[in-house]
Amino acid sequence: SGLVLVKNPHLDLMEEDVLYHLDLGTKTHNLPAMFGDIKFVCVGGSPNRMKAFAQFMQRELGLAGAGEDVADICAGSDRYAMYRAGPVLSISHGMGIPSISIMLHELIKLLHHAKCRDVTIIRIGTSGGLGIEAGSVVITDTAVDSSFQPRFEQVVLDDVVVRSTELDKDLAEELLACSRDIPDFPTLIGHTMCTYDFYEGQGRLDGALCSFSSEKKLEYLRRAYEAGVRNIEMESTAFAALCGLCGLKGESCCFHLL
Amino acid sequence: SGLVLVKNPHLDLMEEDVLYHLDLGTKTHNLPAMFGDIKFVCVGGSPNRMKAFAQFMQRELGLAGAGEDVADICAGSDRYAMYRAGPVLSISHGMGIPSISIMLHELIKLLHHAKCRDVTIIRIGTSGGLGIEAGSVVITDTAVDSSFQPRFEQVVLDDVVVRSTELDKDLAEELLACSRDIPDFPTLIGHTMCTYDFYEGQGRLDGALCSFSSEKKLEYLRRAYEAGVRNIEMESTAFAALCGLCGLKGESCCFHLL
Repeated sequence: SGLVLVKNPHLDLMEEDVLYHLDLGTKTHNLPAMFGDIKFVCVGGSPNRMKAFAQFMQRELGLAGAGEDVADICAGSDRYAMYRAGPVLSISHGMGIPSISIMLHELIKLLHHAKCRDVTIIRIGTSGGLGIEAGSVVITDTAVDSSFQPRFEQVVLDDVVVRSTELDKDLAEELLACSRDIPDFPTLIGHTMCTYDFYEGQGRLDGALCSFSSEKKLEYLRRAYEAGVRNIEMESTAFAALCGLCGLKGESCCFHLL
Repeated sequence: SGLVLVKNPHLDLMEEDVLYHLDLGTKTHNLPAMFGDIKFVCVGGSPNRMKAFAQFMQRELGLAGAGEDVADICAGSDRYAMYRAGPVLSISHGMGIPSISIMLHELIKLLHHAKCRDVTIIRIGTSGGLGIEAGSVVITDTAVDSSFQPRFEQVVLDDVVVRSTELDKDLAEELLACSRDIPDFPTLIGHTMCTYDFYEGQGRLDGALCSFSSEKKLEYLRRAYEAGVRNIEMESTAFAALCGLCGLKGESCCFHLL
């Protein structure tokens, strides 16, 4: 049916659903009227960047109000920022799996309550590249964990639940085809490694702690490259797992800084 | 010596240390002049709340400029917000372990470069309470993981490193003594459980996914209470581990909402 799936039997029994961190709710807002026509959701870490992206989309789509300021739909909360430009929603998710997970749980419920259909979600973030040119864009085919495995292990009460992190292959190819019109940014499809830590977890030598040698770091990153990893960031496994479970066609493409 | 310890042999070899997510650096800023006299650092998730806290401290300490606006020291970055009020630094850390870890790595290096001495760091956050009155404040004696163990397991390249999550017991008692002057907020010392997920990870029945019954949730939370857990949040184990390793006297006290 193209509807967004919520996999929670308790939800239908609730009189009101408050999306705490978005400052929205089913009793306080008419979600179908506000969001029913949304077809694309773009998410990224930084609130300023997601605002700039909404303004860019307004201009690209030739929408009324292009060039003017855009309002933060979640202005009542400073956890995330949300902007819209026509059928496109642009939302920040902060840094790391726990932060993007909270946003995605509430976004998925929002799209469900709003009865949105055939929604495509794309993460547009930054990442560190692995053996690729600076300024490249990596379109993720599969998100992998720090053991290079395509899985998202999540602790749910006493249990460790393992979830798949495959992303939409057709969408990846479609985005790659689009990239051919933009010669400034070399674009490739590859695995994206997702870590819980930016410093030690990504083999960086410039954190407050560093418990490994630069040789060990190089050896680890070489193995990551051999396993197909082309960039490293901090949200992709949770993003892929949650989108996959809830029937959202999802893709992640990251810009490799420096 | 009371100095903040950086445990990274590579750091001394670097010509410049850029604290990326704080928009500060050793070559672009005179960190000892800007921060050398800092004695207290208060951290919490929300940028607005940490700004309000800095303004509150300005008034409480009777500082010049009290009642006026305070400038965000990290205004060039929208990842975190940082304010100061005399010897007190007030910084936001976003939500979840990965987000607070990035901030703490860079804060610890900042305090190290600034040659700060005898710094006390306190996390002032919100949390969900367990078998306690709404509006209570929980001062954490030990942060525990979702198995109720006092440890922070962190993936560092191929290895899982286990770190201690003890907090400063004397500081906890000192804060409890202070709380006796504020009868409005019942205050207690207890264990704080730290999870990676707000919805399924904390046994909430109102996420986009929920793979357990309400009976299983209640049974898990009962065991958590028996293990000494009095509140649940998403940053305390990483906070305790990083502060402990770097010689920062740290404490976490959270306000139990609802």
